[in-house]
Amino acid sequence: MTLRLGTMQDWPLNVMRLVDHAEREHGDGEIVSAWADGNMTRTNWAEIAKKSRQMAKALTKLGVKQGDRVATLAMNHERHLISWYGAIGMGGVLHTINPRLFPEQLGYIGNHAEDRVLLYDAMMKPLVDAMREHWKTIEHYIVYDPPEGWKGDPSFEEWIGAEDDDFQWVDADERDPIGLCYTSGTTGNPKGVIYEHRSMVLHALAEVQPDCFDLAKRDCALPIVPMFHANAWGLPWAAPLVGCKMVLSADYSAKRMVDLFRDEKVTHSAGVPTIWIDMIKHIEETGDELGSLKKVTIGGSAAPRAMIKWFRARGIDISHAWGMTELSPIGSLGGKPNGWEEMSDEEQVDWIARQGRVPFGIEMRIVDDEGNVLPRDGKASGDLQVRGAWVIGKYFKADEPAIDADGWFSTGDVAALHPDGTMQITDRSKDVIKSGGEWISSIELENAALGVDGIAEAACIGIFHPKWDERPLLVCVKDGSCEVSGDAVVEGLKGQVAKWWLPDAVEFVDELPHTATGKLSKKTLREQFKDYSFEGVEAMTGRD
Amino acid sequence: MTLRLGTMQDWPLNVMRLVDHAEREHGDGEIVSAWADGNMTRTNWAEIAKKSRQMAKALTKLGVKQGDRVATLAMNHERHLISWYGAIGMGGVLHTINPRLFPEQLGYIGNHAEDRVLLYDAMMKPLVDAMREHWKTIEHYIVYDPPEGWKGDPSFEEWIGAEDDDFQWVDADERDPIGLCYTSGTTGNPKGVIYEHRSMVLHALAEVQPDCFDLAKRDCALPIVPMFHANAWGLPWAAPLVGCKMVLSADYSAKRMVDLFRDEKVTHSAGVPTIWIDMIKHIEETGDELGSLKKVTIGGSAAPRAMIKWFRARGIDISHAWGMTELSPIGSLGGKPNGWEEMSDEEQVDWIARQGRVPFGIEMRIVDDEGNVLPRDGKASGDLQVRGAWVIGKYFKADEPAIDADGWFSTGDVAALHPDGTMQITDRSKDVIKSGGEWISSIELENAALGVDGIAEAACIGIFHPKWDERPLLVCVKDGSCEVSGDAVVEGLKGQVAKWWLPDAVEFVDELPHTATGKLSKKTLREQFKDYSFEGVEAMTGRD
Ligand SMILES: Nc1ncnc2c1ncn2[C@@H]1O[C@H](COP(=O)(O)OP(=O)(O)OP(=O)(O)O)[C@@H](O)[C@H]1O
Ligand SMILES: Nc1ncnc2c1ncn2[C@@H]1O[C@H](COP(=O)(O)OP(=O)(O)OP(=O)(O)O)[C@@H](O)[C@H]1O
Ligand SMILES: [Mg+2]
Ligand SMILES: [Mg+2]
Repeated sequence: MTLRLGTMQDWPLNVMRLVDHAEREHGDGEIVSAWADGNMTRTNWAEIAKKSRQMAKALTKLGVKQGDRVATLAMNHERHLISWYGAIGMGGVLHTINPRLFPEQLGYIGNHAEDRVLLYDAMMKPLVDAMREHWKTIEHYIVYDPPEGWKGDPSFEEWIGAEDDDFQWVDADERDPIGLCYTSGTTGNPKGVIYEHRSMVLHALAEVQPDCFDLAKRDCALPIVPMFHANAWGLPWAAPLVGCKMVLSADYSAKRMVDLFRDEKVTHSAGVPTIWIDMIKHIEETGDELGSLKKVTIGGSAAPRAMIKWFRARGIDISHAWGMTELSPIGSLGGKPNGWEEMSDEEQVDWIARQGRVPFGIEMRIVDDEGNVLPRDGKASGDLQVRGAWVIGKYFKADEPAIDADGWFSTGDVAALHPDGTMQITDRSKDVIKSGGEWISSIELENAALGVDGIAEAACIGIFHPKWDERPLLVCVKDGSCEVSGDAVVEGLKGQVAKWWLPDAVEFVDELPHTATGKLSKKTLREQFKDYSFEGVEAMTGRD
Repeated sequence: MTLRLGTMQDWPLNVMRLVDHAEREHGDGEIVSAWADGNMTRTNWAEIAKKSRQMAKALTKLGVKQGDRVATLAMNHERHLISWYGAIGMGGVLHTINPRLFPEQLGYIGNHAEDRVLLYDAMMKPLVDAMREHWKTIEHYIVYDPPEGWKGDPSFEEWIGAEDDDFQWVDADERDPIGLCYTSGTTGNPKGVIYEHRSMVLHALAEVQPDCFDLAKRDCALPIVPMFHANAWGLPWAAPLVGCKMVLSADYSAKRMVDLFRDEKVTHSAGVPTIWIDMIKHIEETGDELGSLKKVTIGGSAAPRAMIKWFRARGIDISHAWGMTELSPIGSLGGKPNGWEEMSDEEQVDWIARQGRVPFGIEMRIVDDEGNVLPRDGKASGDLQVRGAWVIGKYFKADEPAIDADGWFSTGDVAALHPDGTMQITDRSKDVIKSGGEWISSIELENAALGVDGIAEAACIGIFHPKWDERPLLVCVKDGSCEVSGDAVVEGLKGQVAKWWLPDAVEFVDELPHTATGKLSKKTLREQFKDYSFEGVEAMTGRD
């Protein structure tokens, strides 16, 4: 109604205020970059802000206009961070490209985004050179870290070094676009998600909470999530909000990470399970330590129980996060429940293994195939829908909204909601195995298989079955620690899952296909096994 | 520019979403009320939300319209909380009245606010009865806790009990008014501040941060700050945001507080220094313990060093907050700096004794008399100005904005800003003593005087001086522990403050005047001493 009896101030939620805040209040807060060539550099929020203004000026000179897309193809480092702030500060829309996408996908998204400028790491040169002729709209290529004797695209530092920092951030509406990121293409062609000033500020405010990332000025955060996907889980916005130290690493090798944890006194880290698998292996082999690390957040795929236990055994507070590109990306996080101290060890692990609770700003519900809302009883599972302050409304360039009339966005995940407010992902809608009208969770079968001796990785897909429509096929990679057979795997699953969930067949492969963000690519796996059929369907081990 | 390439969702920042969130995600989170008569009641977020809908319906039936003021004159308890949510949920503007204001002030603000409904505690009946004829606009009086055999205004529970909870919160713009609170009248007539949905949601998001109140679901908060002033520091909005347990007490006696701390396992508390003075005295006398208390926030007036040390000695994380009615009220809070562990005990106390740092959402600067911005060097002190997402723009019914063209609000406080981002209040603009063109901080003199044996309380005001314009007069209350003279006090101040700051005279009184929020009332003190003059000004102990 906008009655104005008196007022509070107008103070738009603009992400550049986060940068201003960090410069003004936490100017000497450190940003450390661990470069791909092994070098380390150090700067601070004051310097980052200054260089961002220089870059904003340089982009303006190139003729980039408000709303134009400025792309990056780069790992995590301070120049990438400056580019986020500089591009957005001058009104550009920062498009982070995932270098692990397939060439066709890279071509598709570059043109779909109509990128005008591309900033890239020298190590990406072969990729960039291969794509140049396919990208129709990119006018300027700039390289972040040209090695000695580099000939080719201009160097970032020289380019921005030519400008002074006398620049005022462009005056933006809080609903103006700031960023563009494409989904990882697990279920189809990547779709573009546009972030806005307001949604990103609220996302940052939500995620620094004690029950989310729990970030304070005194902390040191090392995101092992790439800035090229899903906003590095928002940490490049959360860090200036609280003024903490941030370590950015272009290199994710386990050894480098462990060195950084120790040398930089990292307190907070976050990453997908595959990152931690490598790290755990490395630590088990070398006996290295985790330094001051006190909180680790795992998301992107389900964290296996064994991983949760490994961190707990080392006194590290481990939590699970769930999110997606369309959610900026944080949807739920594992802040502890009441009565935590009274829970048994197994109960605590069960709790962490779920995908956490929503922070204020996100709403969730589950619905059945007809759209009926299902109860939050921890038993019913259905399509997970979300709504909220940093949830997509419409995909980039889409004609139709991505949400229904009430604002609900269908995530494509299948989940159960527990009475204590926690959410548990049971599968992706496209991966769930529909057997005789009932659902088998491929994720639960995979997690259970990981508990069988000798199994390193497992993926489960539904295969056509004349009687039950679909039945599970489990595809495994051995870890070489011991002999293991298909029968042994099925034996190991018994008691862990319902009898009718047991896979009808187990196949072994040397490697499973992964997507650009390190997730199992069931789409590719299904293609690989498209002609597979169960032999002797009547005699199968499964449903009967 | 509102380019719409794609979008995030529309999700207004409406405080009723905090209530919905608590009901949905933290329905069984406890709210405990400790009533004035010694009784205790327990409810939870689900029940609070339901009753708030009932009350919203009841108010609508009374004919209250969007934007109308609904007043409360009550201590902290669940029914007061329900009234906040119920009144705002139906579109009303919740006006919390401070019962400790003088009758003239009470009459003035009730009429100025044009309150239509008043909800009050039975213990306020004498006050309400005395005011009825003066309040011209109040049509309905409702009593929260009528004792057995009560005859008079209807009972709250009966009134809302007549309604079901089938009510949809009114559709509000995020800039719509939700609350009204008058300042405590330290410097003149109370001024009305209007809060809005958006400002209050952002305030709540800011204050739950690790570097602010550090609130998580597992915590139990007991605000010892009244809901009738400055939004009880925002805690009734922060609690539903994180879903923590909250204890509301209508009784602030030290014994009751200590019992609650212990019995309810309170982890977080907040209050003004006078509250803690009583509590500390009680604990020293009885040997009572503080239970699970882990974090205490002190604000409203400067926390004395001795108080800071007392909490530290008990392993409690103690921080200082600064705020004002015009800031919803949080302006700065004492999240720890980098290098905390390396600081000496005295350095840590020095740090806590300052008023903290701004959270994201608040900007600060200090200016001199000509409006020139002063450096943040920890030395310069000047008028403190703020700007931000929950800072006043215009007082209730004012014709002119409360801020300058750049949005700066002059707080009336005098402060220094330190290079590490901390702010230090040195005085109020009206209280600072201007001696020969230089400023003497009355607060620093008072704090130093508290360190002299035998002094319980001290207030310092400027008295006309023919040569220096003003010189300090120190007015003290003895604590009876030992003999103390004016000379002894001056002697005790030496070395603690600059020589030219030493008061020209010390007077002893039995009691110092206080305002409705328990602060020293220098306004009244100045009236009491308006005819005072220094004798033998040439021979004074002060400036020379
Ligand atoms: N903690 C988690 N546990 C299980 N799955 C998770 C978790 N966090 C994220 N996910 C999965 O990741 C998805 C989001 O990933 P992302 O946005 O990177 O793209 P994608 O869904 O993999 O790609 P596309 O949408 O193009 O198929 C979620 O929908 C969910 O399936
Ligand atoms: N931590 C603190 N240290 C010192 N002073 C404080 C602190 N917190 C608050 N204050 C004082 O309290 C003031 C805010 O108080 P409040 O809004 O209750 O009304 P008031 O300023 O006392 O009344 P009025 O504005 O009517 O004179 C601040 O301006 C400041 O002077
Ligand atoms: Mg997806
Ligand atoms: Mg004031």
